[in-house]
Amino acid sequence: MPRKICVVITARPSYARIWSALAAIRDRSDLELQLVLCASALHDRYGKLTDIVRRDGLDVAEQLFTLIEGENLVTSAKSTGLGIIELTTAFDRLKPDLVVTIADRYETLATAVAASYLNIPLVHVQGGEITGSIDEKVRHAVTKLSDLHLVSTHKARDRVIRMGERPEAVVWTGCPSIDLAAIAERDESEFDVFSSYGGVGPVLDLSGGFLMVMQHPVTTEYGAARDQIVETIEAVRRLAMPTLWFWPNVDAGSDAVSKMIRVYRERNALPHVHLFRNVAPEHFIRLLVRSSCIIGNSSVGIRECSFLGVPAVNIGARQAGRERGPNVLDVGYDRDQIVEAVTLHERRGRPVRSHLYGDGEAGVRIAAELASWAPSVEKRLTYD
Amino acid sequence: MPRKICVVITARPSYARIWSALAAIRDRSDLELQLVLCASALHDRYGKLTDIVRRDGLDVAEQLFTLIEGENLVTSAKSTGLGIIELTTAFDRLKPDLVVTIADRYETLATAVAASYLNIPLVHVQGGEITGSIDEKVRHAVTKLSDLHLVSTHKARDRVIRMGERPEAVVWTGCPSIDLAAIAERDESEFDVFSSYGGVGPVLDLSGGFLMVMQHPVTTEYGAARDQIVETIEAVRRLAMPTLWFWPNVDAGSDAVSKMIRVYRERNALPHVHLFRNVAPEHFIRLLVRSSCIIGNSSVGIRECSFLGVPAVNIGARQAGRERGPNVLDVGYDRDQIVEAVTLHERRGRPVRSHLYGDGEAGVRIAAELASWAPSVEKRLTYD
Amino acid sequence: MPRKICVVITARPSYARIWSALAAIRDRSDLELQLVLCASALHDRYGKLTDIVRRDGLDVAEQLFTLIEGENLVTSAKSTGLGIIELTTAFDRLKPDLVVTIADRYETLATAVAASYLNIPLVHVQGGEITGSIDEKVRHAVTKLSDLHLVSTHKARDRVIRMGERPEAVVWTGCPSIDLAAIAERDESEFDVFSSYGGVGPVLDLSGGFLMVMQHPVTTEYGAARDQIVETIEAVRRLAMPTLWFWPNVDAGSDAVSKMIRVYRERNALPHVHLFRNVAPEHFIRLLVRSSCIIGNSSVGIRECSFLGVPAVNIGARQAGRERGPNVLDVGYDRDQIVEAVTLHERRGRPVRSHLYGDGEAGVRIAAELASWAPSVEKRLTYD
Amino acid sequence: MPRKICVVITARPSYARIWSALAAIRDRSDLELQLVLCASALHDRYGKLTDIVRRDGLDVAEQLFTLIEGENLVTSAKSTGLGIIELTTAFDRLKPDLVVTIADRYETLATAVAASYLNIPLVHVQGGEITGSIDEKVRHAVTKLSDLHLVSTHKARDRVIRMGERPEAVVWTGCPSIDLAAIAERDESEFDVFSSYGGVGPVLDLSGGFLMVMQHPVTTEYGAARDQIVETIEAVRRLAMPTLWFWPNVDAGSDAVSKMIRVYRERNALPHVHLFRNVAPEHFIRLLVRSSCIIGNSSVGIRECSFLGVPAVNIGARQAGRERGPNVLDVGYDRDQIVEAVTLHERRGRPVRSHLYGDGEAGVRIAAELASWAPSVEKRLTYD
Repeated sequence: MPRKICVVITARPSYARIWSALAAIRDRSDLELQLVLCASALHDRYGKLTDIVRRDGLDVAEQLFTLIEGENLVTSAKSTGLGIIELTTAFDRLKPDLVVTIADRYETLATAVAASYLNIPLVHVQGGEITGSIDEKVRHAVTKLSDLHLVSTHKARDRVIRMGERPEAVVWTGCPSIDLAAIAERDESEFDVFSSYGGVGPVLDLSGGFLMVMQHPVTTEYGAARDQIVETIEAVRRLAMPTLWFWPNVDAGSDAVSKMIRVYRERNALPHVHLFRNVAPEHFIRLLVRSSCIIGNSSVGIRECSFLGVPAVNIGARQAGRERGPNVLDVGYDRDQIVEAVTLHERRGRPVRSHLYGDGEAGVRIAAELASWAPSVEKRLTYD
Repeated sequence: MPRKICVVITARPSYARIWSALAAIRDRSDLELQLVLCASALHDRYGKLTDIVRRDGLDVAEQLFTLIEGENLVTSAKSTGLGIIELTTAFDRLKPDLVVTIADRYETLATAVAASYLNIPLVHVQGGEITGSIDEKVRHAVTKLSDLHLVSTHKARDRVIRMGERPEAVVWTGCPSIDLAAIAERDESEFDVFSSYGGVGPVLDLSGGFLMVMQHPVTTEYGAARDQIVETIEAVRRLAMPTLWFWPNVDAGSDAVSKMIRVYRERNALPHVHLFRNVAPEHFIRLLVRSSCIIGNSSVGIRECSFLGVPAVNIGARQAGRERGPNVLDVGYDRDQIVEAVTLHERRGRPVRSHLYGDGEAGVRIAAELASWAPSVEKRLTYD
Repeated sequence: MPRKICVVITARPSYARIWSALAAIRDRSDLELQLVLCASALHDRYGKLTDIVRRDGLDVAEQLFTLIEGENLVTSAKSTGLGIIELTTAFDRLKPDLVVTIADRYETLATAVAASYLNIPLVHVQGGEITGSIDEKVRHAVTKLSDLHLVSTHKARDRVIRMGERPEAVVWTGCPSIDLAAIAERDESEFDVFSSYGGVGPVLDLSGGFLMVMQHPVTTEYGAARDQIVETIEAVRRLAMPTLWFWPNVDAGSDAVSKMIRVYRERNALPHVHLFRNVAPEHFIRLLVRSSCIIGNSSVGIRECSFLGVPAVNIGARQAGRERGPNVLDVGYDRDQIVEAVTLHERRGRPVRSHLYGDGEAGVRIAAELASWAPSVEKRLTYD
Repeated sequence: MPRKICVVITARPSYARIWSALAAIRDRSDLELQLVLCASALHDRYGKLTDIVRRDGLDVAEQLFTLIEGENLVTSAKSTGLGIIELTTAFDRLKPDLVVTIADRYETLATAVAASYLNIPLVHVQGGEITGSIDEKVRHAVTKLSDLHLVSTHKARDRVIRMGERPEAVVWTGCPSIDLAAIAERDESEFDVFSSYGGVGPVLDLSGGFLMVMQHPVTTEYGAARDQIVETIEAVRRLAMPTLWFWPNVDAGSDAVSKMIRVYRERNALPHVHLFRNVAPEHFIRLLVRSSCIIGNSSVGIRECSFLGVPAVNIGARQAGRERGPNVLDVGYDRDQIVEAVTLHERRGRPVRSHLYGDGEAGVRIAAELASWAPSVEKRLTYD
């Protein structure tokens, strides 16, 4: 009997991160994949993952609607409560041998609670990182509920062990998102983002270089979301380069972001900007590889771009604490600093590539660990 | 304006543990107590806390029914989900400046998630201990969601800091349950447990010494709950001393315990045993002080009894990892071992008292910390 | 493909009522039974239905824990909300062709809402009756959400049609509980309630006649529950006949009933009373047939007893509005009236039997209707 | 002490309908208004009611986030379950003397269940109408849970009584939406919809006559939503008149509508159409009064327009069964029929006005009924 591995995806970026591992699980005869999609992964406004997943040749075991509308702190908390109720039903039915949860979004704690309270061994991918904000609390709480930790960097492994986890249960695999970057980079087939995804705004000429923007609202600084995005918009205006802008996820504060972009667009203040949502991860990477620079606060700028050697301008504190390769320049929420950093990158040229977050083989390693790991009955702090 | 301190109580034992701190909060003019009762704290079968609390002179700010019937792993998980939903409503209304959560029962994670997701600074009392079972996971996950840690032992403080919390946010206060023990011990007023609480079984003559039993089912060993309790019952039969037996809390497995006790009673196999539920903590302690020995797996045997110098026979792994004073003998689920340990205690006489878990001033210290602590905006692992 | 019939049972009495229909559904090759147990049907305190059901040779498709502890009006309402959430998941998975809901307990509205909101045709058994209390509102609300009505009496059929339902969708089948009574009455195998069910209290000699008591708290008169049950207890004391007392269902107010019975028992004030819970319906009926009189406010006294010709003393308003056969005497919550009515029944002797609530063939008729009925897309009031 | 009247609003159109009654409640010293907003009333995508309400001088007692994202049948059902949980909390806190629910959207059943299960007398506004679809079931189920019925038409009153409600508890008040129409009609202040609401599309010249469109997806015909809206879009294209189009509510199917409109717009196929959302009811009416014709399936075309004498083309079955004044022409989902009906209206000229749905004084009458009505303890079918 193959070991049943239930992987819970709560958002599009998590799917991107874990994709190569999902494929590797599916391809092993000693593992059976049970894929559960829930929370913002199911919602059209930010990209319907179900269709993408099926196109990628994976079955969806469960779709769970767990997001309470409102996009504020109250609904984030309550959605997590509802998520626990719904995931418990799903796990009780699927009876997985292991549950896998990814990264640190607020909904991932629902997966961790449901699995650990049902005594199902829990595997956490991407623990041990430092980023600040509520994600930081969530990530380490998930670590303490988890039985096996598959981490992206050697420093992360060290941190998880220092938190009191048994060293033999903390395994470096590298980040599976790097696998995707490696594959996408090698893909030479034709691809035109405008005809594939439509989006909003003019069709741009990308041949002379272009910017990419992805900026999420920051949960613990709710009220300031609007002011922060305005700095980025103003910087993009001033840079006046062709720009591909990608919509943020559902989060407290994302409405503020959407609104300001709309306001500027209606004033025709962003004539060289095209907006997209729901771009498939592999296509996103292929654009990244060709882009001059990525601006914002997405982890993509830190992780994938360090592997790919793409210049990144990282804004604000959202990625604070994450290890950085030589491709990152950090700035504040300040239009001048953003413009300057993009300009500095241009002068310096392409950064050197780094294997800090993985070497492109994480997925296969993760699947192998899931197949061979022997869950222990009980877990305690290792401190004597 | 006094600082609003919301303390969430999810079960009778937690109330006992935190009582002196609640009184100390109430007595400070710079603090305002918002007491929330939920989960099993509200249920008659295991003791209606609301009435006790009011008799103690405290106001109840909210009563939240969050326990889904079933007493199995599925309902434990779902009750936690429902708890998050209901506590979020309560916190959103009460707008506390700090939320306090106690110890490590599964429902406490609901308090921690609701508070931290609403960006309300969270205070954890009794973190950093080691016990095994699901409580272990819950306790440390709560630590990672908390901003201030008020711990019971110096070793616990050390562990919380090693987990990556800032040393200045980890404060030794001692355990407030020891305060209660100190007060109850000094109380010389008249008290007869049989006339006060009724209970079930014969009225016993306690003047020649007596046993006390409190044994909880162990969550991760669900199926074995019945066999385990039978060993204790058989040991108590053989010891043939007057015995006061106290009902366990709501937990997966508690039905098995109740049933076996009922079975033995109906066969008249426990003629010298009297059963109680919902005995007020201060009365419980006054019995403890006079008892020959406590048997079971309650933390009372480890904590309060070390301070009081009462012999304890600790069964099984539930308290594994907790620091012990000289009053504890550990045994397995084995009637012979239990009988032997009680006999050994008798021969040795009264153990020396220990301040391992506190000196009787924890409540005042906790209230002082809650009044003076300056919450920081954001928390990160301290590891460099 | 057989038509999939999902029957939702929320409490022990509903199972008793529908049993013959379940058996008839199972026995037809053109129907497939999907049995869902939820709410109080799953709880030990009031009888674990799952085991009985399996012993009866039926499969359980789903068990849903939907009861929030508290037994008050707030938890009744919230349990209904949780029931809708959980039943929606179950229906979405089971994809039944028809959903069947029975009678009028508060949880049945959860079944009706979940099915009708998912556009699954809904069948209501036992609509059109008049009883007062919250059940009355629930029953008729369920009627308005239902597409097919299988009613117990000709008067009930008339009422459902007058409420605006299409006459061809309102079918008299008789009450399936009468089928059970007919079968149980014919059963001559040996049966001793004391050895089969244990219960609490002395073993009684039933050969010289005995009383049966089943009294539910009345939801809308919450505070008075305690006073009401005392009248019955006092009447039973005065009658001093061997008495079999059956515990009520989970309902707001049931704690008051349990407590008063316990109080009297502990005073040894009920020496000729034996208490039972969770007696299988067929056994209950076999006791009924032999009993001198049933006292309380259960519908059994009105329905089954009219068919069986068993004297019933019906207390209070709970069954007000239900049609009565010649076997019923109505009294208030008054010990004198209760005693008098039992005495009057004794003098009058056995009442004549009536087919008012069915002829013992309802189950087969219900199954036939479920197989042949053609659901219509949409429903409107029939009033022109 | 004024009587506390809790009015629950679940969507923008309900607010419009009840506005004059809310104002009349606020203005009476013997009533205290407790306004609760929940479900789609809180969501930006379809209009943030909270701000409008406050601008109108009303306090919001509670905002409850009860909508689970997904806009399909499963989430409609589950949102209703969540709504019951949240509304029960709110009612338990607000302790209203009466709860008022409006009309027949699926979420209104949550209000009705929560109030009736808490034994709070329930008042239903706009019962007794016939429309088909799931609304029909919801509306009459709410009637059966309600204690007082304030109806819009004399025929509706007759129907509610025929359903078994006591005639003295069924009071004709007329529809309060007509009050709003009467007020808005008299308002001669300046108003320009384009500068006030922005919206999407060209600024149109309305002086030569214009169309208004409001078409909701029809729940029980889910899959067909897309085809249906295309017929209307094509008719509007062919009519080539300036057209103001208003977005539908959140409902299973509304995504299909949004998508098709977007598709046509992106092809520039609707050059004379301007889209709005969240237009204040009084502004909507002022547009209606000036418009040539309203197209779609909103009840506005039947109700307000009969009072105002505005031509309406009513598409499909959504309003089937509602009484009609002389202003309505009914058509199928058919572009030819729609075009023809608009043309016929043009030829015929302005229809005569009707008081079928009220005379403009409903709000005052509703408030008076709420103040004077004596709730009875219990309700039964009136059929003898």
